[in-house]
Amino acid sequence: MAPKTDIEIARAANKKYIQEIGEKLGIPGDALLPYGHDKAKVGQDFINSLAGKPDGKLILVTAINPTPAGEGKTTTTVGLGDGLNAIGKKAAICIREASLGPNFGMKGGAAGGGYAQVVPMEDMNLHFTGDFHAITSAHNLLSAMIDNHIYWGNETEIDIRRVVWRRVLDMNDRALRQITASLGGVANGFPREAGFDITVASEVMAILCLASDLKDLETRLGAMIVAYRRDKSPVYCRDIGAEGAMTVLLKDAMQPNLVQTLENNPAFVHGGPFANIAHGCNSVIATKTALKLADYVVTEAGFGADLGAEKFFDIKCRKAGLAPSAVVLVATVRAMKMNGGVAKADLGAENVEAVKSGCANLGRHIENVKSFGVPVVVAINHFAGDSDAEVQAVKDFVAEQGSEAILAKHWADGSAGVTELATKVAEIADSGVSDFAPLYEDEVGLADKIETVATRIYRADGVVMDGKIRAQLKEWEDQGYGKLPVCMAKTQYSFSTDPTQRGAPTGFTIPVREVRLSAGAGFIVAICGEIMTMPGLPSAPAAQNIRLNEAGEIEGLF
Amino acid sequence: MAPKTDIEIARAANKKYIQEIGEKLGIPGDALLPYGHDKAKVGQDFINSLAGKPDGKLILVTAINPTPAGEGKTTTTVGLGDGLNAIGKKAAICIREASLGPNFGMKGGAAGGGYAQVVPMEDMNLHFTGDFHAITSAHNLLSAMIDNHIYWGNETEIDIRRVVWRRVLDMNDRALRQITASLGGVANGFPREAGFDITVASEVMAILCLASDLKDLETRLGAMIVAYRRDKSPVYCRDIGAEGAMTVLLKDAMQPNLVQTLENNPAFVHGGPFANIAHGCNSVIATKTALKLADYVVTEAGFGADLGAEKFFDIKCRKAGLAPSAVVLVATVRAMKMNGGVAKADLGAENVEAVKSGCANLGRHIENVKSFGVPVVVAINHFAGDSDAEVQAVKDFVAEQGSEAILAKHWADGSAGVTELATKVAEIADSGVSDFAPLYEDEVGLADKIETVATRIYRADGVVMDGKIRAQLKEWEDQGYGKLPVCMAKTQYSFSTDPTQRGAPTGFTIPVREVRLSAGAGFIVAICGEIMTMPGLPSAPAAQNIRLNEAGEIEGLF
Repeated sequence: MAPKTDIEIARAANKKYIQEIGEKLGIPGDALLPYGHDKAKVGQDFINSLAGKPDGKLILVTAINPTPAGEGKTTTTVGLGDGLNAIGKKAAICIREASLGPNFGMKGGAAGGGYAQVVPMEDMNLHFTGDFHAITSAHNLLSAMIDNHIYWGNETEIDIRRVVWRRVLDMNDRALRQITASLGGVANGFPREAGFDITVASEVMAILCLASDLKDLETRLGAMIVAYRRDKSPVYCRDIGAEGAMTVLLKDAMQPNLVQTLENNPAFVHGGPFANIAHGCNSVIATKTALKLADYVVTEAGFGADLGAEKFFDIKCRKAGLAPSAVVLVATVRAMKMNGGVAKADLGAENVEAVKSGCANLGRHIENVKSFGVPVVVAINHFAGDSDAEVQAVKDFVAEQGSEAILAKHWADGSAGVTELATKVAEIADSGVSDFAPLYEDEVGLADKIETVATRIYRADGVVMDGKIRAQLKEWEDQGYGKLPVCMAKTQYSFSTDPTQRGAPTGFTIPVREVRLSAGAGFIVAICGEIMTMPGLPSAPAAQNIRLNEAGEIEGLF
Repeated sequence: MAPKTDIEIARAANKKYIQEIGEKLGIPGDALLPYGHDKAKVGQDFINSLAGKPDGKLILVTAINPTPAGEGKTTTTVGLGDGLNAIGKKAAICIREASLGPNFGMKGGAAGGGYAQVVPMEDMNLHFTGDFHAITSAHNLLSAMIDNHIYWGNETEIDIRRVVWRRVLDMNDRALRQITASLGGVANGFPREAGFDITVASEVMAILCLASDLKDLETRLGAMIVAYRRDKSPVYCRDIGAEGAMTVLLKDAMQPNLVQTLENNPAFVHGGPFANIAHGCNSVIATKTALKLADYVVTEAGFGADLGAEKFFDIKCRKAGLAPSAVVLVATVRAMKMNGGVAKADLGAENVEAVKSGCANLGRHIENVKSFGVPVVVAINHFAGDSDAEVQAVKDFVAEQGSEAILAKHWADGSAGVTELATKVAEIADSGVSDFAPLYEDEVGLADKIETVATRIYRADGVVMDGKIRAQLKEWEDQGYGKLPVCMAKTQYSFSTDPTQRGAPTGFTIPVREVRLSAGAGFIVAICGEIMTMPGLPSAPAAQNIRLNEAGEIEGLF
């Protein structure tokens, strides 16, 4: 019999009522706002009531640079959460929500895989609790109000050539990337160039994931720059008066969503900002709520550790005052082989030398994470074809780095496959050896912050930035934005900006093509390469095969 | 002390858990999918299980032509539902969902008013259970797939000048009415003119409200015409292969929403198609479900009886096989005065003559409703300033028409103010005197159907249609669409197409400017005047005053 697919496993899950999951964390039934029987939002009043409680230990799951082989970062996050619960710890996980649009292009994303999944998988890949729809509405309300403001007299004197606030849809729709809007005559306004991004690229998404509460959310929304005047002075969202109504639209979306793993352990799934032009982590409010309710909170960050962990540390932890106790760095034998130069088609054959050679990538990530003062454990996410010798090669390499690599079989065995890793992680987290500090101080100049990340994390020889970009950074410093952290937008496949340079490349520079100010989210985006903020659909989109079958089950989405 | 506002009354509601409301109708807890504690969707499996049960009596609440004085159609629907329950009947109401976008322009809409409201009012004016967001996603997925189809080779040979499927947002955004899309070069597709409508104008919305089940939904979605080829042959949604994925996106949205009135009686709130380019009624599935669960179901239709009741009878009842038992026609003394020529500012003064003169409008609606074979009762929705003589004038007039007018004070007194009306309505519904038949047979030609509505309902001398429009109708007949009913898009303020012609105008014709085929929804739209499918925001949009106050309550939305 063929092994079960992720969706078959997810459908066979013995789900508990979400109220029972909440009970595990001491959340009373009335503090849960149910969405069906297996999803709920945790009420804001209850969250407020937790203020005085001590925090649990925060554990970050990150990974090597992603390869087409797949690393299983979310799978390991889920598995580790189940593993901690299985060894008697009170643990919860915190992951991001999925974007709807891309599911209709390529096959949709599960939340984890095998026997380490979060359910209900189908809802999580569709509308879930409507958070992204709320973000879309709030974002586009501001867009409509900007054009409406111009239409009725343009009192703030917006230069209509310099409206930087676009519109969003949670859809892969390349036709909307660049449009001319307000055509058709006097009644429809002043024609101007405009465009749409996908919802996860919205600054509103980043803000929702960084805001501490609704008041902070409103203030940050108000601080977003939406346009410039002819004299280049910024026009803020608050000048248009949209932040109050946007906050009302986001009132429910700000409350974290609670679901469960296949083993009925609590999982917070909330927020999902891009990991390139934004910081790529689940919401601060979900993480902080989980820390009040559980002794161990396992979370993850987007892409590999060069982007994901760095942003988690330098943006999320810095801003939210979080201090992680341990990092789990996910690697696979297959990915090591690809980093060692093996083609995807040849991954099936044992190749210990390639594994050893590919470990250079892993080694640099270990060093980088340690440079933040946080202890690191490597999780080798086991695949069926991995040979013992290959696994041992990774273990030996990691031991040479002064860390430990542990084989984890949660994909096949659930929590039973991950007790060794869970035990080790809990031990490190409890030891108090973590001494977290971000990579750079707030006071460092913006250009120097970019340089610091490029040279110390990516190991570039330096950064290439033309005078115009340096002048722009200087201008923002003069305007009071100098203390913001930087958010690097770079390929996830390499330490360099060349996606084909796997392993641990050296002798390259990082060209910064453009910088953007996310004044509400509170970071400067440094764009180092092509960044797509509105995907397109492929020639045979998955949507053509998605349908309800006779049993009313969804086919083709996974 | 000032009388309480609608929102103050709604916030003070003593709401019951939605499971308790479901219990009143015999819906088991597991058949309700809760959205918070006060909203739920009724599960499809449970709905399927009701197939063999007998139906309750269906009562339509409609009104005279709307005036700026306000008639209170929804308020009366809610009040009558509460009134029927108060006199010991098992009754439910069925109304439409509110559109999000317009709430940010003018002050938002309540669901009813005074002591005849549906709650939770705030949720119902915001995201509610996400149905409209699902419709937006499904609609725009098809839009993206059409441009994607063209981008990758345009196998079906769509004429890109003839793409009729637009995009939608639930937002008042005039800048999107007319755009040029796919700009920016090869990677973004073939530039073409496009545009956005508001979500309630989507054919997907009309289909969701007319489909009998998910299978029917999918078939109808597939039958929508999205574009034409150079030879003018239609390209259907099913040619693009989008209907399956759209159905998956609409799977939850198809399940009716259950909420409650202030008096804790069940209210189904589901769907909300435009009442001009679509049929303006809540969903068939909600109405049919309510009829299986309650002995009396009170529902309403958009605008006045000339548009709303006619479409309810000729489109919804015809298609769904429904037979209404009684009609309640809502009138107010104030509206009668306006129909009699009194300006809004002068409505406070008693003016019995103006009331008598304005009753001509009411009289024509009574006649029209009776022509469908359904008995009619007039509800005089009481306002504080109405004089006894004015009320009596309406009663006398209605008595002369062979019907009865009953004063109803549900706005001020809830069910206690409406027991006389409820008793009368139940009596008529139980009497079995209703002998419903639609206005015209399916077999009548399309042009003749338009003519029939115009002359027999509006009392026009005739219809003005140029040869091109007649040829288009003929072509559709040849293609097999001849049996569809017609959906008139005309001003709601007058029987004629001139909104200033109140009362019961005569001596006018109905010019048909354009006809459209909604092949999936299953009707021909005849456009007789300017129809706005994407509203704009006013110069000082309500959004600027909408915010959360210190208590976390929404301000400015109502």
